[in-house]
Amino acid sequence: MSNGKLKVGIVGGTGYTGVELLRLLAIHPNVDIVAVTSRSEAGLPVSEMFPSLRGYIDIAFSDPATAKLEACDIVFFATPHGVAMSQAPALLASGTKLIDLAADFRLQDTAAFEKWYDMPHSCPDILQEAVYGIPELNREQIKQANVIGNPGCYPTTVLLGLMPLLEKSLVDFTTPIIADSKSGVSGAGRKAAVATLFAEASDNMKAYGLSGHRHHPEIDAQLKQLAGNELQFIFVPHLVPMIRGMLSTLHIKLTSKAKNINLQSLYEQRYADESFVDVLPQGVLPETRSVRGSNHLRIALQSQVEDYLTVIVVQDNLVKGAAGQAVQNMNVMFGLAETAGLDVVPLMP
Amino acid sequence: MSNGKLKVGIVGGTGYTGVELLRLLAIHPNVDIVAVTSRSEAGLPVSEMFPSLRGYIDIAFSDPATAKLEACDIVFFATPHGVAMSQAPALLASGTKLIDLAADFRLQDTAAFEKWYDMPHSCPDILQEAVYGIPELNREQIKQANVIGNPGCYPTTVLLGLMPLLEKSLVDFTTPIIADSKSGVSGAGRKAAVATLFAEASDNMKAYGLSGHRHHPEIDAQLKQLAGNELQFIFVPHLVPMIRGMLSTLHIKLTSKAKNINLQSLYEQRYADESFVDVLPQGVLPETRSVRGSNHLRIALQSQVEDYLTVIVVQDNLVKGAAGQAVQNMNVMFGLAETAGLDVVPLMP
Amino acid sequence: MSNGKLKVGIVGGTGYTGVELLRLLAIHPNVDIVAVTSRSEAGLPVSEMFPSLRGYIDIAFSDPATAKLEACDIVFFATPHGVAMSQAPALLASGTKLIDLAADFRLQDTAAFEKWYDMPHSCPDILQEAVYGIPELNREQIKQANVIGNPGCYPTTVLLGLMPLLEKSLVDFTTPIIADSKSGVSGAGRKAAVATLFAEASDNMKAYGLSGHRHHPEIDAQLKQLAGNELQFIFVPHLVPMIRGMLSTLHIKLTSKAKNINLQSLYEQRYADESFVDVLPQGVLPETRSVRGSNHLRIALQSQVEDYLTVIVVQDNLVKGAAGQAVQNMNVMFGLAETAGLDVVPLMP
Amino acid sequence: MSNGKLKVGIVGGTGYTGVELLRLLAIHPNVDIVAVTSRSEAGLPVSEMFPSLRGYIDIAFSDPATAKLEACDIVFFATPHGVAMSQAPALLASGTKLIDLAADFRLQDTAAFEKWYDMPHSCPDILQEAVYGIPELNREQIKQANVIGNPGCYPTTVLLGLMPLLEKSLVDFTTPIIADSKSGVSGAGRKAAVATLFAEASDNMKAYGLSGHRHHPEIDAQLKQLAGNELQFIFVPHLVPMIRGMLSTLHIKLTSKAKNINLQSLYEQRYADESFVDVLPQGVLPETRSVRGSNHLRIALQSQVEDYLTVIVVQDNLVKGAAGQAVQNMNVMFGLAETAGLDVVPLMP
Repeated sequence: MSNGKLKVGIVGGTGYTGVELLRLLAIHPNVDIVAVTSRSEAGLPVSEMFPSLRGYIDIAFSDPATAKLEACDIVFFATPHGVAMSQAPALLASGTKLIDLAADFRLQDTAAFEKWYDMPHSCPDILQEAVYGIPELNREQIKQANVIGNPGCYPTTVLLGLMPLLEKSLVDFTTPIIADSKSGVSGAGRKAAVATLFAEASDNMKAYGLSGHRHHPEIDAQLKQLAGNELQFIFVPHLVPMIRGMLSTLHIKLTSKAKNINLQSLYEQRYADESFVDVLPQGVLPETRSVRGSNHLRIALQSQVEDYLTVIVVQDNLVKGAAGQAVQNMNVMFGLAETAGLDVVPLMP
Repeated sequence: MSNGKLKVGIVGGTGYTGVELLRLLAIHPNVDIVAVTSRSEAGLPVSEMFPSLRGYIDIAFSDPATAKLEACDIVFFATPHGVAMSQAPALLASGTKLIDLAADFRLQDTAAFEKWYDMPHSCPDILQEAVYGIPELNREQIKQANVIGNPGCYPTTVLLGLMPLLEKSLVDFTTPIIADSKSGVSGAGRKAAVATLFAEASDNMKAYGLSGHRHHPEIDAQLKQLAGNELQFIFVPHLVPMIRGMLSTLHIKLTSKAKNINLQSLYEQRYADESFVDVLPQGVLPETRSVRGSNHLRIALQSQVEDYLTVIVVQDNLVKGAAGQAVQNMNVMFGLAETAGLDVVPLMP
Repeated sequence: MSNGKLKVGIVGGTGYTGVELLRLLAIHPNVDIVAVTSRSEAGLPVSEMFPSLRGYIDIAFSDPATAKLEACDIVFFATPHGVAMSQAPALLASGTKLIDLAADFRLQDTAAFEKWYDMPHSCPDILQEAVYGIPELNREQIKQANVIGNPGCYPTTVLLGLMPLLEKSLVDFTTPIIADSKSGVSGAGRKAAVATLFAEASDNMKAYGLSGHRHHPEIDAQLKQLAGNELQFIFVPHLVPMIRGMLSTLHIKLTSKAKNINLQSLYEQRYADESFVDVLPQGVLPETRSVRGSNHLRIALQSQVEDYLTVIVVQDNLVKGAAGQAVQNMNVMFGLAETAGLDVVPLMP
Repeated sequence: MSNGKLKVGIVGGTGYTGVELLRLLAIHPNVDIVAVTSRSEAGLPVSEMFPSLRGYIDIAFSDPATAKLEACDIVFFATPHGVAMSQAPALLASGTKLIDLAADFRLQDTAAFEKWYDMPHSCPDILQEAVYGIPELNREQIKQANVIGNPGCYPTTVLLGLMPLLEKSLVDFTTPIIADSKSGVSGAGRKAAVATLFAEASDNMKAYGLSGHRHHPEIDAQLKQLAGNELQFIFVPHLVPMIRGMLSTLHIKLTSKAKNINLQSLYEQRYADESFVDVLPQGVLPETRSVRGSNHLRIALQSQVEDYLTVIVVQDNLVKGAAGQAVQNMNVMFGLAETAGLDVVPLMP
């Protein structure tokens, strides 16, 4: 950390999580971006690919082979699954911390990782010490962590939406937890594909991945850990024609213990000290645009049938669901103000 | 019926269900549109308000007070709630049948009607003989009916999505039925309102109406009738940034009896003779655009957790969810080919 | 032509113009679709790729190498540039007519073709007898044609927008003709590409191709032929976040002769007998959605500055701008009703 | 100015320019928002209407009648035309400066104002001293101004797009200047209206206002002043289905003097010291999303025909086209850093 600023590297800066990291870090007061790598675009000024960054990011993409990432204090991996784990040992050896926005350090169970991502895990020992990066859930461990598995977008909504209930054992596990989740199209990433073309995805919606979405085992594992219990989980993701935004509608059965608890108060108290989790007043439902471009996540509770609760959660999938949470994790890891670089007012309309 | 064609009137032709009726009826081979009324637009050529109809609809809006609707064979009401029931007695007295696209003839329980629509029902006797207009459910009664309560858009998806299970008593009612439904914005109607402005509704989504949506009691009543049983129903509608399209994700618990039944085959057989209900092959999930502009409704089945089933249903909310179903009902009532005027290939992309 | 129906083949049925041909031809009363080819998808049922066609198209894609296209009365090429000309000699030899929706038969000047499309023209002799397929412009020649070069989408709007003026020598060529054109994203085709992803193209617009768009020489050549004169032409295409729709704003300087002419009447008379060209009443401006899904093209005239005229033209880029015009050409070639299969009411909203 | 911060009032905080001012001013380092008025919403917490501002704006709307606006250093009017001029005398008398985002102080010619806005001007003397608020054009006068007429969105693009040419007398006025402009739908404001409903404006585009748009005389007057000359101006605005964003395509004829000038360099030099005007490298064309949410405006130059130039300009209509420019004007008026509060990286995707 020279001149009082963290030296930051980004591996894989050409996708949506990469450019979102750049948007946030460009005006982070405690950060110097020293390298943004891209195998295919090495040499190209970053702002030539992303004109929105003209005047904010002056460096060019560098070749991963020659970028001096070991000189960084922290490196973000906004890459396909498998890249971060291949570089983690060398970086850690040189004292560089890392945050992986892909799945390499999300699933503690290496067998599950290998099944869902169809590749062996190359550093299970590092995986053991990696921390799942939701600060509202694991803040103390994140402070000590050298490696963060930054959560998937869907899991962030489900876990923060249910955490207060699970911590207090208010969920009846005889009935499956259901997450009916909806994502904007940027969640599919910035890669050439017919299915996410404007002319395919606009004025259209669909459910997808019912027979097995990679966030299913991730949510499952975290829910079980929070619950300290086996449970059943039904997960139906949907694709919605918006650029950014994610909304999860969660249905759970409550235990009899919940009858005597004011759940609205429970949520408000649980998140009272959190800068980025906003429990809406009773009766108010959230819109995704109310968090567009910001790291906030908003929660509302409703009950239509006795003993059942519906929890609605919204976030910007690229911010609290990806790059913003990664910056929040970095802030926690380095003892910075947790909101540093994240004081962005949502863009509305 | 002169010149072998039905004489058709439309009351309230300026909203989305009205103009959609006009789109479909304009090229219906067995129909003459003789009157389209609008209090506010009387005298204005219909195609001046809706240039898409230039060359197809040559008449002007007429004043409801002077339009000779009693001379029609059938009148569609594409009006606010309460209008159809006020005119029903006179029309029926002159031998004119009617289809109401609003709610006046959907809820057999007048107390429920009065609670949810906040007005007394002016002709409960006519309500008693009215038929709930889903041909796949009530075809024989529709053939005999003089008055049709055309279903709401959401109810159509939920009822056709669950009918095969309910008919065979395969739903376990100890767990609530959950409908997580998503609608395009045209469902909110063609009326000046801030909440559905482009700049409000685009790139945005939200749940709404959790504390009480008017389609809730309608679905509830029909489900109970189909089930022959009490049951609990959780209904979460969402607004999605697309013009047309509706997708309902239905979650139910199965009875033990279901273990021995091939549900995919059950659905395929139940709908084998239906022109507008399409059960997709196992593993294929529907997109809303696959029915854009058409009267088709597509269904897919998936199970992630033993004893639980997820049913996905898509339709065009303005066609099978409103005007198309109304035309289908008319066809059934008058012994026409059920697909007459509805042979529209979905618009894709 | 067996059973009184034309035997039709489609080469390249997996792109947007291909599937749009299928949508229109599926319910064309005089057509049997006997083959839809696709090298990559041979064997796959067409409706598996395009579920919107379930129940309408029952055949599978066939291998171009084995499809018996010579047995067809007419073959449409919805393929990349260069394919139609490679197959044209064999098809013509067996008496099959053909309509190319790509550029192989649009530019009479082979040097221009070779410059803009970067390939030699393999059958300049056939090109000589090919007819540029705008029926409103070349109907008599189309009736006799064996090969049609179906126009580009932008050229159709510019040419039909200016034809009445050019035919009467009302354009002053000392000032360039300016076409400021806007296209929906489907115009870019159904191919995997980052630039037309939903998350890139939505809530965004841009001008493109200013340094040389392939429709520029096509428009230029046709304008000169219509004008019987040299002229200068400025063409600025823009990409707009809508699936379908094209709007061209045309700016021209009028000759002094125009002072004594009622241009509104000129246009109305010129197109009075045309089924698909609609001159709007004075003062009414067209919206693209007023032609969504239909073969109509609407025109409006306005003048803000003396001696200058602004012409606004809208069409559906996939219908009158591509597949619909191709079907219209087929109808003309075979003496069918020109509107056969094209009686589709625009989808609004 | 207490505690070193400007005391700011906003009159009319419920529209898009009002809420955009709030978004920008909420994190402006030199500003305290002391009052946001709304006749209809007095008493309602601002963040209840705009949940995107939860945690950023803690005050409620106040009644215009009782709000102590005279205690402010500056008051922004984000109101309908006519409101600012009614309150200007009292505010100025108490030493409060004001910036009107409506049209009250844009047109120096009161007859033109009265013709286009259909109301008398109540304070022509104040109008005389008001400054047209484009800092890149009038910075020195803005420094001294007490009243700013904040420009319309379209005029900002046209004037900044042509200013370098007009200052150097490079425009040939024998040919009209043409502005073919496209705006996102938020430009129509946050008011209940059918024409800008999602279901009307989405997947659709149109030209509008050809027979007389209120920005026409505003641009006209400013162009003439810049040109020191009479000139003719053709203005065609279009509505495009995006929330934010404006793109103007400007066509001009060059004088012979321009032949010897490198126009690209001319533009780059003219704007070299401007923080918010970005001249793109030769050959690069701008997208509206490259400025989404930010105060930047980007310009590109192209020439297809000798002696003619096409200038493409993009901005966010709500920022540089409205609220951002207003904040920039405030910064200039009070000697703050011109970029204070405007250091927002564009939101992409």
